Amino acid sequence: MYDRMQELSIQNMEKIHDAAMDLLKNTGVSFNEEEALKIFKANGHRVKGATVFFEESDIQKALKTAPRRFTVHARNPEKNVEIGEDDFVFLPGYGAPFVMDVQGNQRQATMEDYDNFCKLIQTSPYINMNGWMMVEPADMPHETVHLDLNLSNMLLCDKPFMGSPVSRQGALDGIEMAGILWGGKKNIMDKTVSVSLINSLSPLQFADEMIGSLIELARHNQACVVASLIMAGGSGPVTLDGVLALQNAEILAGITLAQLVRPGAPVIYGSTSSAMDMKTGALSIGAPELSKNIHLVAQMARFYNLPSRSGGGLTDALCADAQAGVESALALSTAARSGINFILHSCGILGSYIAMSFEKFLVDEEACGMILNMLKPLALTDDSIDIDVIKEVGIGGQYLTHPKTFKLCRTEFFMPTLMSRKNPDAWAKDGKKHINQIAEDKVAQRLASYEKPDIDPEIEKQLTQYVEKRKNP
Amino acid sequence: MYDRMQELSIQNMEKIHDAAMDLLKNTGVSFNEEEALKIFKANGHRVKGATVFFEESDIQKALKTAPRRFTVHARNPEKNVEIGEDDFVFLPGYGAPFVMDVQGNQRQATMEDYDNFCKLIQTSPYINMNGWMMVEPADMPHETVHLDLNLSNMLLCDKPFMGSPVSRQGALDGIEMAGILWGGKKNIMDKTVSVSLINSLSPLQFADEMIGSLIELARHNQACVVASLIMAGGSGPVTLDGVLALQNAEILAGITLAQLVRPGAPVIYGSTSSAMDMKTGALSIGAPELSKNIHLVAQMARFYNLPSRSGGGLTDALCADAQAGVESALALSTAARSGINFILHSCGILGSYIAMSFEKFLVDEEACGMILNMLKPLALTDDSIDIDVIKEVGIGGQYLTHPKTFKLCRTEFFMPTLMSRKNPDAWAKDGKKHINQIAEDKVAQRLASYEKPDIDPEIEKQLTQYVEKRKNP
Repeated sequence: MYDRMQELSIQNMEKIHDAAMDLLKNTGVSFNEEEALKIFKANGHRVKGATVFFEESDIQKALKTAPRRFTVHARNPEKNVEIGEDDFVFLPGYGAPFVMDVQGNQRQATMEDYDNFCKLIQTSPYINMNGWMMVEPADMPHETVHLDLNLSNMLLCDKPFMGSPVSRQGALDGIEMAGILWGGKKNIMDKTVSVSLINSLSPLQFADEMIGSLIELARHNQACVVASLIMAGGSGPVTLDGVLALQNAEILAGITLAQLVRPGAPVIYGSTSSAMDMKTGALSIGAPELSKNIHLVAQMARFYNLPSRSGGGLTDALCADAQAGVESALALSTAARSGINFILHSCGILGSYIAMSFEKFLVDEEACGMILNMLKPLALTDDSIDIDVIKEVGIGGQYLTHPKTFKLCRTEFFMPTLMSRKNPDAWAKDGKKHINQIAEDKVAQRLASYEKPDIDPEIEKQLTQYVEKRKNP
Repeated sequence: MYDRMQELSIQNMEKIHDAAMDLLKNTGVSFNEEEALKIFKANGHRVKGATVFFEESDIQKALKTAPRRFTVHARNPEKNVEIGEDDFVFLPGYGAPFVMDVQGNQRQATMEDYDNFCKLIQTSPYINMNGWMMVEPADMPHETVHLDLNLSNMLLCDKPFMGSPVSRQGALDGIEMAGILWGGKKNIMDKTVSVSLINSLSPLQFADEMIGSLIELARHNQACVVASLIMAGGSGPVTLDGVLALQNAEILAGITLAQLVRPGAPVIYGSTSSAMDMKTGALSIGAPELSKNIHLVAQMARFYNLPSRSGGGLTDALCADAQAGVESALALSTAARSGINFILHSCGILGSYIAMSFEKFLVDEEACGMILNMLKPLALTDDSIDIDVIKEVGIGGQYLTHPKTFKLCRTEFFMPTLMSRKNPDAWAKDGKKHINQIAEDKVAQRLASYEKPDIDPEIEKQLTQYVEKRKNP
């Protein structure tokens, strides 16, 4: 396929691989977590303090057992998703402390906001999985909020969900709760029902909470995204070339640990590295370097036969304006076209992760639908081309009233639910609204239309009791 | 290269080709122009009334002489452009009758607006060619406005430009004026200095003005885009599959005429076909079907070894909001990635071609810059990866104050001139502006910074006199 974006040659990818191997062998990666160090030592790794060194054979062994694709089961089995190869999923934004409204007022996020995002995800035609910490509720105790987020994910939405990677105990809570949801922990022992986000602490470190989580999640066959989010020029080299090498070392180190814990544990090769804004020293996720990295990460993951993760609808804009539209669409469409399997942050993020916007969530969601349509191939059969109709209409005719047009007009083309196709008069009559103002109304409609998916009341009770008990031991 | 958008197989492309051949042989194409019919007859085509029929051998003969790439010369030779294969150009919007301001007020376009767009193009770091009829000035007499547009193109901007296809005489005026600009018509006889847009009148027709223009332009070695803009379900089949076949027939028919007039005349395979909005019956250029068609047109053009043309920053939105950003970015990036060579409408269009917006022009222009950055490959050399720096910084270090970061921080990453990377406080302090409001100020700055490019006063005088004489014969 012709593509003006860079195609990495085998030599290019081997160069990035070799650079990572050099770093893993000679500089090592710090794992500040006791059990991890024990596992590495037991498997013959050189360990010095918290620094673990890797031979290429360690990495190759891990790559042999890591699956190239896997299923994430939903409690509604019709909503199971496949991750890997041609199959991919859209997920919402992750980790925003604030909510931004249409007027540009930024406020701390609440548990109610979190629940409302769960409801938007449940009613979304395009978002395939529930996220985790779409917003960070400021009105809940920090130590136990992960339990509330898990509970909302499980009760308000019957799609597959992301798990809690806040700490070893946090991960275990998620596993226990998933066990309850599936009617017993034994039912999920060989079944992946969650995907959790394990970030490195660049350069070349992992925090103990992340590693404790990774160990428990892998042990229980729950999927982990192992991801770097390097700010090029800050927490990593000032060239994307260097970033590719550095993040490759970090990601492969984390994946190797997961495979040592449980060979075959599902893992995802992840990155949302991007450029530092050289004027302010802040991370820019609206930068074109983000998209470039996404495109190259997809190729590196395929080089290793691993599923990949990137960001999607990301922007530095603080309101859902044309900048937000451009930046988000570029990264989102790059991820989808270039072959990313797990597209986190597909919807809602504003201002370099600082805030989620309900209105932008809907705009981005519609972009997901448009992109899915763009990727849908034409059949190009005799029937779909239908030369007889073209001959019949002939020179200078019209197709509007042709029976075939009537037959297909409701199904053939993408039907927007948000994007406006009004003419100037109709638009003026409707108050010359920008799409974020139209989205504001639609958010309210969507939330009003939400219906809580059925769940066995006994299971709901047990889940609620688990959370209560953990909060008040 | 892995790409989730559809890759047409040779069989797919042959199917589209064969369908077009069937139409050209059995239904024919109407050329309502005397000389065209004479040329076709002289070359052995079956002609019935205004309908011309084509054998496959006629098409193959034309494809043998049509160049796969060509240079368009600018009066400033540093601004010459290459069109074809990997080389491509961004051009502004085309044909809008109105100008839309930031407040959503739509007004008829004026000659002053046209000139201001010429000035934005002249000062643009990313727009490679001046367009034609970026807006249609309502304050100029219809019969002679093409002369004024040509004059502005030639005097206000020293980039290569689009030519006037309004009629045979209009095309000849453009050629005469280009002759003056190059110091004598003999100087452009074998030199392409303009590209003109020849649209079919779907289905299967060409208007006489367009064909008169095409004949004169091809005769004088000036490039023609031969393009279909089918509204699927209206002026063409309700499936994109059928649209591909129909537009292929129309485009190849026009290209064949150009090659009969002058074998080797530069031509471009063009389409901005898109879907009809099934609720309103209006053309939708924000539809994902537009991008899908762009991607497939690029492949069909490569199948024929021809340069390709599509639309770019197109939207149905009537203001430069998030919808405009998403829709424009999707089509623009698809065109650039998928290999289109002549990306018309890259900047400024709103509301399904109804209006140009100066502010959206700047937003789209920045998107062009971002896309160019995305396409720029990494070097992936030892020096660009620089493993020694990564080892030196080591575990948990920082790169911000590293000498290499200082060295590259001003050149390594894309530096936006419009997109905001402000933090929430700075953004609030600055009035919480949307990007179109920021763009409004920048438009004024850009126009103020414009300098008319030097031109031989004698040539300027002759050009002005030519226009005056044609207006008052």
